[in-house]
Amino acid sequence: MDFPGLVGPRFDPGSVWLVGAGPGDPGLLTLHAAYALGQADVVVHDALVSEAILSLAPQARLELAGKRAGGIRTQQLGINNQLIRLARQGQRVVRLKGGDPLVFGRGGEEALALAAAGIPFRIVPGISAGIGATAACSIPLTHRNLARSVAFATGHDSSGDLAAVDWHALSRGSEVLVFYMAQRRIGQIAARLIEAGRAPDEPVALISNATRPDQDVRIATLATAAEAVRAVPPGAATLILVGSVIALRPLLAAWQQTE
Amino acid sequence: MDFPGLVGPRFDPGSVWLVGAGPGDPGLLTLHAAYALGQADVVVHDALVSEAILSLAPQARLELAGKRAGGIRTQQLGINNQLIRLARQGQRVVRLKGGDPLVFGRGGEEALALAAAGIPFRIVPGISAGIGATAACSIPLTHRNLARSVAFATGHDSSGDLAAVDWHALSRGSEVLVFYMAQRRIGQIAARLIEAGRAPDEPVALISNATRPDQDVRIATLATAAEAVRAVPPGAATLILVGSVIALRPLLAAWQQTE
Repeated sequence: MDFPGLVGPRFDPGSVWLVGAGPGDPGLLTLHAAYALGQADVVVHDALVSEAILSLAPQARLELAGKRAGGIRTQQLGINNQLIRLARQGQRVVRLKGGDPLVFGRGGEEALALAAAGIPFRIVPGISAGIGATAACSIPLTHRNLARSVAFATGHDSSGDLAAVDWHALSRGSEVLVFYMAQRRIGQIAARLIEAGRAPDEPVALISNATRPDQDVRIATLATAAEAVRAVPPGAATLILVGSVIALRPLLAAWQQTE
Repeated sequence: MDFPGLVGPRFDPGSVWLVGAGPGDPGLLTLHAAYALGQADVVVHDALVSEAILSLAPQARLELAGKRAGGIRTQQLGINNQLIRLARQGQRVVRLKGGDPLVFGRGGEEALALAAAGIPFRIVPGISAGIGATAACSIPLTHRNLARSVAFATGHDSSGDLAAVDWHALSRGSEVLVFYMAQRRIGQIAARLIEAGRAPDEPVALISNATRPDQDVRIATLATAAEAVRAVPPGAATLILVGSVIALRPLLAAWQQTE
């Protein structure tokens, strides 16, 4: 692909670009993201970023983010320090994250650490899984009269606890609910949603490895989601969607091109 | 920009690609979106899509979507028919929408109409304003311990009525609330949120023309949002964000590169 009219922003040595890699298909990178990969000296990437995307940075050294041992908090401090160290060496650093860096991607923490260290950074948004994975399997995230509001929530947080969420309110506040990193908790989450008044037969979609050759979609209900999640490929990035918009999928899938 | 390793999917004559244009900066188009623009015979675009983006389709005929008179419903039927007619003529049609086609973009309705008419289509996601506009003005949409859940809602629906939303639940269900197309209703919305228990001094960001040269950001509070919206540029696409994550903005903005 060649876009001769377009010129990317200057990528200064000693700066860090926090770049969203999107759901997996390299064609869903933004132009700025693909450009950044081609310019970088070092790419610090998450484990789940696809090979096809990393191959757009053949000139760069690849470093897996936060390889060192420790809990999530230690690991995040390690990544922050890794980025600061590389930038101080005068490298052009891409910090590449699946989806969007600021949607449950902890990019805000990395940006704060860089700002505190006086390192200039750029944020390059990406297609978040909640948007890209659902489109890839023919589910409109919003739809007139079916979904006026969509909530994106995470299935785990630093407290490791579901209690901090007001499940009753979340359940009644948005017709469509999208859960990131929730496959281990979906049984508990579904139970809370049913308690809060969502119908046990409301459809649930479990979408793994979206937009990749090994995309896997399972349709269940709130009542059967805990059972259905056992069949999800292990180690995959799985997005879980709850809402009646899932019913539109068979109508659209017959005519949607995805190859 | 040149990405020699990448080849786009085949764009068949007689098919329609529903393409997200992102928030405005052409660099935030996905590779597939930019590629589609370069391949299209016709681009049916919304009024708010930027000139810089339309210029990526110099070979295509540009048609404004739904030029004919009528209310929103008639207009949407008109757009559906416009797409079907062009596809049946054997054209390669790009339907270009600001942001993402399925996030308050009515892309689901267009896809359903195409499916019903037996016309193959592809969905190319875009960076939705809720994600792209907030990143552009240094606001992390989620942040550990500040935002575990984000709700995207629309400020107007087909009933033209705010009553259909459970404001109490929306307000308590997600720490961060993002409203699309809500500038006319922000006074009413803010009042409902305060009634539901959100603090009157909670920060509100009004982001217009995000990622474009004329980007305009105003920070207010729930108590002052109705007043602040009067200063927003008329005719702009304005996104309204409510949440304590806005407090992080000055910390990040000093080191974030946006030119």
